[in-house]
Amino acid sequence: MIVATTTVNFAYLSGVWLETYERFKAAVKCGDYTAYVVPALDAERVRGNVFSYRDGEDPAEALRAAASPCDSGEVYIDGGTTLLHFEVVKRAFPRATFKLADELFKKWRAVKKEDEVAKIREAARRIRRVLDALELAQDATERQTAARIYLALYEAGLRPGPILVQFGSNTALPHQEPTEKKLRRGDAVVIDVSAAYEGYYADLTNSFFYGEPPRKYLEVYQTVEKAQAKAIKAAAPVVRASEVDKAARSTIEAAGYGPYFIHRTGHGLGLEIHEAPDISPSSQDVLERGMVFTIEPGIYIPHAFGVRLEVDIHLGEKAEIL
Amino acid sequence: MIVATTTVNFAYLSGVWLETYERFKAAVKCGDYTAYVVPALDAERVRGNVFSYRDGEDPAEALRAAASPCDSGEVYIDGGTTLLHFEVVKRAFPRATFKLADELFKKWRAVKKEDEVAKIREAARRIRRVLDALELAQDATERQTAARIYLALYEAGLRPGPILVQFGSNTALPHQEPTEKKLRRGDAVVIDVSAAYEGYYADLTNSFFYGEPPRKYLEVYQTVEKAQAKAIKAAAPVVRASEVDKAARSTIEAAGYGPYFIHRTGHGLGLEIHEAPDISPSSQDVLERGMVFTIEPGIYIPHAFGVRLEVDIHLGEKAEIL
Repeated sequence: MIVATTTVNFAYLSGVWLETYERFKAAVKCGDYTAYVVPALDAERVRGNVFSYRDGEDPAEALRAAASPCDSGEVYIDGGTTLLHFEVVKRAFPRATFKLADELFKKWRAVKKEDEVAKIREAARRIRRVLDALELAQDATERQTAARIYLALYEAGLRPGPILVQFGSNTALPHQEPTEKKLRRGDAVVIDVSAAYEGYYADLTNSFFYGEPPRKYLEVYQTVEKAQAKAIKAAAPVVRASEVDKAARSTIEAAGYGPYFIHRTGHGLGLEIHEAPDISPSSQDVLERGMVFTIEPGIYIPHAFGVRLEVDIHLGEKAEIL
Repeated sequence: MIVATTTVNFAYLSGVWLETYERFKAAVKCGDYTAYVVPALDAERVRGNVFSYRDGEDPAEALRAAASPCDSGEVYIDGGTTLLHFEVVKRAFPRATFKLADELFKKWRAVKKEDEVAKIREAARRIRRVLDALELAQDATERQTAARIYLALYEAGLRPGPILVQFGSNTALPHQEPTEKKLRRGDAVVIDVSAAYEGYYADLTNSFFYGEPPRKYLEVYQTVEKAQAKAIKAAAPVVRASEVDKAARSTIEAAGYGPYFIHRTGHGLGLEIHEAPDISPSSQDVLERGMVFTIEPGIYIPHAFGVRLEVDIHLGEKAEIL
């Protein structure tokens, strides 16, 4: 039996993206049987075998009822389950042996069906349209720019994920969220946008220079561009994900920027912005037909500037840019 | 020793709201000593004793180093820790006894310091200004309206949390997210907005009728209004939170709408939108001076309409509406 308590695996099994915050929810699956445990106030939003509980009632009882047709001796549970929700599951099945369901979900979710690829392609197309239409304004702040992008994504029918807009030296901090910093001529710019279409995320990053780029910036940009092209070329079914990372990393190292590439080359995309495969030096993943992932090498010169270029790849016979 | 792995308890101990997604992070605390374990690409964003690790390195080693001045025999860990992150902590301290830190954090965080109350008051003030300025447009969709609110909150310097905009029969579903439904004359409307100022959330809900309200709507509205007033009047230091819930619930039951009040009366506010105290029938919490929480009774007539009225209360000598 599988008990999925996280919003994403619940969505994978139920087709419904349901945030219940601290309240317990679960999708229960054994063979062809599936049932859902949800707070009463969300019961109308889920179709199928729904077992609901009210605030103040023990969700463990609803969970036990939902699982009654299943063998609860061995329970696979997702690793994103919190310790508090795990207490509910243990209360429902006190004699069960628990195993992590993550490898199962990872395997199922990493290889996309055609309709899933179509949704990610559509998300990428709409994000690109938003970014193409964006006109940067001198003195606009990072936050104002991010808000404009958010609204445009929303109006384009996407669910926005994290949006990074970085100007000047902030581009050297790959995860820096938008601040009140204003755009000035002579700033490097990084814009990293993720957004979902019908639940499926695309994730794209543009880097450019606002004004006349110095020679050093061009050199770094071209190095990242070359690293990205090498990684895309390396990506093919049955290739190790670590080899794809190596294709990008060795290009950056050869140009002398190795210490400034401080993250992995890419990550899978789907119901989550980060999922399998992991395109990193230590990844054990092997690429398969149907996988969708980012290729996003970057170089970050502390206190100066950063460049990251990110595209989304669908692996058919070969790598296709979405 | 305390090991806080969740974004919110990490923020409570470090002062930095740092999303690291699937990557491990932790704040380690024993006595006056505090240290932070973060992914290398976030290291520049945290001040203090920072122990960073790169993708591919084991965060358990950084965690062990961060905790070296502490006694790691007994480790208090937050209940929001995922099973996967708990594996990292167990690898770092294989001989430790683990206990939940939630009661500690709940107690610490539930009673707000003056500067925390000031931030929630400011968040409420700015949300109210945004809602007061909002003009509803016939034929605007729930999503468009939510997007306009989001942008206005963002531009007001707030971090928007969930925003619910519900028209017509959607108001009968308390958690229904914005859809493509258009506003028509004769629709009930519920707008529920949460947003944070400097990390601290306020959460407000308005309900009203677009057009001439039928008698039934007015009756329900007045019942909710009365229930809210009774609950606010009941709230005082040393009173049980369940008594405050009862004040609202018994008012709604007396009016014959008991089965249509399907959630609790309120919840604490702070770094999270939902935290202690829990204002519900089964709550064991006792109100204390310094607590901040919502009072939000509601009545939901299935397939017809719903009404919820939500304000934020700061408990000084008596209840003050923020």
